[in-house]
Amino acid sequence: MSPALPRVLHEDRLLPSQPAERPIAREIYSAVRDLPIVSMHGHVDAAMLAADKPFEDPASLLVVPDHYLVRMLVSQGVPHDSLGVPRRDGGPVETDPREIWRAFASHWKLFRGTPTRMWMEHVLEAVLGVSSALSADTADEIYDAIAGRLAEPAFRPLALLDRLKIEILATTDGADDPLASHADLAGRGYGERVVPTLRPDAVTNVDAPGWRESVAGMGARAGIDVVDYRSYIAAIESRRAAFLAAGARATDHGQLYADTEVLDEADADRIFRAALRGEVDAVSARAFAGHMLTEMARMASEDGMVMQLHPGVLRNYDPAVATHRGNDVGYDIPVRIDYVRALRPLLSRYGHHPNLKLVLFTVDEDVFGRELAPLAGVFPAVRLGAPWWFLDTPDAMRRFRETVTDTAGFYNTAGFVDDTRAYLSIPARHDVSRRIDAGHLARLVAEHRLPLDEAVETAVDLAYTIPRELYRPLRRG
Amino acid sequence: MSPALPRVLHEDRLLPSQPAERPIAREIYSAVRDLPIVSMHGHVDAAMLAADKPFEDPASLLVVPDHYLVRMLVSQGVPHDSLGVPRRDGGPVETDPREIWRAFASHWKLFRGTPTRMWMEHVLEAVLGVSSALSADTADEIYDAIAGRLAEPAFRPLALLDRLKIEILATTDGADDPLASHADLAGRGYGERVVPTLRPDAVTNVDAPGWRESVAGMGARAGIDVVDYRSYIAAIESRRAAFLAAGARATDHGQLYADTEVLDEADADRIFRAALRGEVDAVSARAFAGHMLTEMARMASEDGMVMQLHPGVLRNYDPAVATHRGNDVGYDIPVRIDYVRALRPLLSRYGHHPNLKLVLFTVDEDVFGRELAPLAGVFPAVRLGAPWWFLDTPDAMRRFRETVTDTAGFYNTAGFVDDTRAYLSIPARHDVSRRIDAGHLARLVAEHRLPLDEAVETAVDLAYTIPRELYRPLRRG
Amino acid sequence: MSPALPRVLHEDRLLPSQPAERPIAREIYSAVRDLPIVSMHGHVDAAMLAADKPFEDPASLLVVPDHYLVRMLVSQGVPHDSLGVPRRDGGPVETDPREIWRAFASHWKLFRGTPTRMWMEHVLEAVLGVSSALSADTADEIYDAIAGRLAEPAFRPLALLDRLKIEILATTDGADDPLASHADLAGRGYGERVVPTLRPDAVTNVDAPGWRESVAGMGARAGIDVVDYRSYIAAIESRRAAFLAAGARATDHGQLYADTEVLDEADADRIFRAALRGEVDAVSARAFAGHMLTEMARMASEDGMVMQLHPGVLRNYDPAVATHRGNDVGYDIPVRIDYVRALRPLLSRYGHHPNLKLVLFTVDEDVFGRELAPLAGVFPAVRLGAPWWFLDTPDAMRRFRETVTDTAGFYNTAGFVDDTRAYLSIPARHDVSRRIDAGHLARLVAEHRLPLDEAVETAVDLAYTIPRELYRPLRRG
Repeated sequence: MSPALPRVLHEDRLLPSQPAERPIAREIYSAVRDLPIVSMHGHVDAAMLAADKPFEDPASLLVVPDHYLVRMLVSQGVPHDSLGVPRRDGGPVETDPREIWRAFASHWKLFRGTPTRMWMEHVLEAVLGVSSALSADTADEIYDAIAGRLAEPAFRPLALLDRLKIEILATTDGADDPLASHADLAGRGYGERVVPTLRPDAVTNVDAPGWRESVAGMGARAGIDVVDYRSYIAAIESRRAAFLAAGARATDHGQLYADTEVLDEADADRIFRAALRGEVDAVSARAFAGHMLTEMARMASEDGMVMQLHPGVLRNYDPAVATHRGNDVGYDIPVRIDYVRALRPLLSRYGHHPNLKLVLFTVDEDVFGRELAPLAGVFPAVRLGAPWWFLDTPDAMRRFRETVTDTAGFYNTAGFVDDTRAYLSIPARHDVSRRIDAGHLARLVAEHRLPLDEAVETAVDLAYTIPRELYRPLRRG
Repeated sequence: MSPALPRVLHEDRLLPSQPAERPIAREIYSAVRDLPIVSMHGHVDAAMLAADKPFEDPASLLVVPDHYLVRMLVSQGVPHDSLGVPRRDGGPVETDPREIWRAFASHWKLFRGTPTRMWMEHVLEAVLGVSSALSADTADEIYDAIAGRLAEPAFRPLALLDRLKIEILATTDGADDPLASHADLAGRGYGERVVPTLRPDAVTNVDAPGWRESVAGMGARAGIDVVDYRSYIAAIESRRAAFLAAGARATDHGQLYADTEVLDEADADRIFRAALRGEVDAVSARAFAGHMLTEMARMASEDGMVMQLHPGVLRNYDPAVATHRGNDVGYDIPVRIDYVRALRPLLSRYGHHPNLKLVLFTVDEDVFGRELAPLAGVFPAVRLGAPWWFLDTPDAMRRFRETVTDTAGFYNTAGFVDDTRAYLSIPARHDVSRRIDAGHLARLVAEHRLPLDEAVETAVDLAYTIPRELYRPLRRG
Repeated sequence: MSPALPRVLHEDRLLPSQPAERPIAREIYSAVRDLPIVSMHGHVDAAMLAADKPFEDPASLLVVPDHYLVRMLVSQGVPHDSLGVPRRDGGPVETDPREIWRAFASHWKLFRGTPTRMWMEHVLEAVLGVSSALSADTADEIYDAIAGRLAEPAFRPLALLDRLKIEILATTDGADDPLASHADLAGRGYGERVVPTLRPDAVTNVDAPGWRESVAGMGARAGIDVVDYRSYIAAIESRRAAFLAAGARATDHGQLYADTEVLDEADADRIFRAALRGEVDAVSARAFAGHMLTEMARMASEDGMVMQLHPGVLRNYDPAVATHRGNDVGYDIPVRIDYVRALRPLLSRYGHHPNLKLVLFTVDEDVFGRELAPLAGVFPAVRLGAPWWFLDTPDAMRRFRETVTDTAGFYNTAGFVDDTRAYLSIPARHDVSRRIDAGHLARLVAEHRLPLDEAVETAVDLAYTIPRELYRPLRRG
């Protein structure tokens, strides 16, 4: 970008502004700014990467699939239809991407002070080279500029891996996924760079819609006839092995609760069979889901796959919206859950196992200090995930460090782990984290709590070294 | 005030002190400092305004009725009797206002760092023109100065509306209130400036003491014989219409829980009749109260009155104090309640209704980020109320903005909504909010997260435009 | 120490770094830096003080017994055995203190940003005069330097009372403790300086292991045959009197819940007898423990001993660790508990009693603002304890002041009350608190919320005057 162009992004953005801290923060940030990106918890579609086609238009890339953005517009009265969010009944919604983009641009003011604004500005200027400030007036001009970029070969999905400085990117894949896109990518030399992640929720939540189909699909994929608990476990173990062979580093668990109740095999089998018959009750289903977390920890302690736990979100809060629009359109709301008592069965069994790496995420700040940091600060298996989802924000990141470091230090956190389906925004998210951690460390330096050289080393560890090491596959004898 | 006088209030008070932020904060604050006050959730007595008599003395105006102040003095051993808080049995308490004032002034040190101190300093200096610092030594001098002011015509209640720069002031009134004072005020040209607010708790909490009398009073006022659920609903709807005709913009709901359970009409009628017979149990009473919140949302979606919900306070914590002194003497304590699951029935029905405006308040900071911001950030009907009661403080306001803006932005908040029975302190409360928001926005500017012009516009919106628009009556076709 | 030596501790450490606050913070801190230490909630062993022998070695003094430090090392894979934490079965663990010290020093990086690092640096430099930065390379040199100090007479336990500037030190002692060490110390002139504290948990938790033995021991010590509830109460009252006579100022209560249910005497007696027979159930045991808190408040309102309540910690979270290593090795985890409803029975009875001083501690920040500050801000009996255990950190202290002052002011807090078994770290802990309070008050001054002279007076009150007065014995007529 030419320095003569108007700029939206300031080079010191998000660094502390006070004069005793800013120069220190700049120095720390300069050590991490250009580090490659380790993106171990993304939701980018592997098939999209494998297809490697140009993105269609600015709206379908940047607006329609972004639930942060859609929910904010909806909250101020913009209908889902105007934003082109598809209806499950196939009914008509806005299809002109320019109109959708205009609806977004004309409400840009709503995003003041939000991470969406920062991510979007980063995507526009740093990734797409579009520096004009968004508004109703500039909507068309910016739309055209983006569309022009998307037509260039350098902005195709696989080429972007370099432009975005992504060293490794994990996708999210169901237990019945054939991993064909990953095989395809591996055949083209991307096997170490784009890796799958096993998300087993659809086969462990026995009362979820479509559970039997998911289990059947998993069995078919594993070549195992799943008829009881034992064959079910065998199928999961088979899929873990297949994921591992395809380069997977981790599993990802998004249940409502963090329960890890342990059932004996007879009880587990009884519930499993009832579920197959469609006769399972909610209490048994919750117990089974909790039991499976402990089982997955047992498997992880054998195969070394990192176990990522993301509980505490009540999905599809509005039933009518769920019926008409489906999942992931902004109606998932955090709820208060317990971690301490819930995780006790799992941690009592595997919390000291040298192979287990359990990364705990939350959307409830209250548990950072009271529950998660004390657990991570004593159990070798536990690491604190980065502030997640609604907490993936500059101020929540700062509060996270100010709250958990006392008890867990820096080295019982997982470093920065992003979580997005918005491919182009991955660098923006890492950059925010690097700036905020630089600012936090600068405060420690300015208050004479940490020497500068240790602060710089810590920043590099958080941005790169820790996640790189944490998600490294188990070395086999 | 002459600049030669000693000053307590510093012109930069509550603005950030660090050099990169203060000049920006000053500039933002200068744009909102003199805006008129929109006071939509006050508890000033309409009859007092209509009577328009001089205030009696400094103690009965500024000390005795202020529960913030009384509770702090009590907490350090000053008896209610010494503060002139009346006994329900009519027993003797201190009646000399000068003695009460001295008791307060001699404990001024207790209020260091509290909002009470800031509000009182603002009332004394900015409203009453008394600039001496409070202490046992200056108690009498200040008492006399205040008493002198109160004798001036410019310090009578209605004249103060101008001095306090109040554009509109909402009072709080029961469902059985005749609204006579409002009619009186309207007749003198204050109909648009002093408006009632319907507080229906006394008729919706069917197990509260005096419920039957309140319902009978409401029925009498509405000209409806309330004998069953249907006539009860008709009476409430009639009163809403009367309040609306009298200029009301909102209803105000102060139940313990945020439950919005929906009963079918037969169940509601059964509970209502049991309550009329005095035979209702606690579980049914809670269900009925929750049901009535949803019913009131239904009515609000028809008549457009803003619905303000203030739950989570356990009233009259100490039974002996309640027996001897009655309500509102400082013994109301926050408790943890759930909002997400509790509000689901209401929001599933009316959360997208274009006429509903549901403003959620809390005294529990924990729910700002986890529960309220995610709801306000997707449901068009939901707005976040300003930090309330124990949270109506500079630091809690700052934490509120730092926590909710990420998810709800600025425009899903209600702007500043004060909540006080202390008439003279209304400008102080708005001024604190304007200063804190200016400081928060200045931080965003100094960290290059928001340009200055957008920050200034946002500050004006929060202080004035948003509440003015939010509480504007529904335009009728 | 010579100024030519390399220094780890910066004189401005932990003070705010921004230029508008630091000079003010320095001025406030200078007024409290050298005040004597009032240490009313310690866990230093009275027998160790009475024996007054030289400390054995750096590891057994500074590493092995420090659960903060051990848990952090364990969390990163250092086994308890390597740290010399004894096994209950007497199995082999590391016994070479130099090796233990090396294991600690080589993991020093883990403690970046933690209070352990700050405390240790203070102990090394300010107490022991060792200024080198810890690392694997300097481990031996520092070990030898410490060992040299420990051999000097000035570093024996009683001599250290002066060096550490401890004016008064409270220990913690069971209800069956003979108080022989205290008698010994009193005989040598330390009776006013080292005082016992009654910790009755072992005799009030009727389902705890060893309860019958503890009760029998207490009875034997009191000369009362404890056979029923009445004789049990008599024995407790007798022990309170004995502790009081030995100089005790307080009792200390560490139950899981804050429940204060009140039983009638017949029910209490029934549960007590069932417990004696070993037949008590968990519900009854919890009720009895809650009842005993209220009973202890009744006794405190008679004898004036301060009542310190520290609930909310789930002890011995990992059963295997508890079995093999016993208590206090880092596996105590905070859990969410309710204070408001739980304390209502006690506060309704004794919350206004002029003799009761109930100091409430918590490891859950969430309750500071929502629950504890509102209670302390109205009940004369209630004071807020300092941020405790996992919250005994610079940032948690700052958040404590920013959260509770609005509602409780400064004077409903207990000032700084430390809580440690690490004798040499007591000054470090007070120094951290004094620095953080100085910084907090400096912010209020810089934001024109408090004049400097009042801020200085408040700092002195928090550091010294308030705890000194609070724990002063009841004056008897």
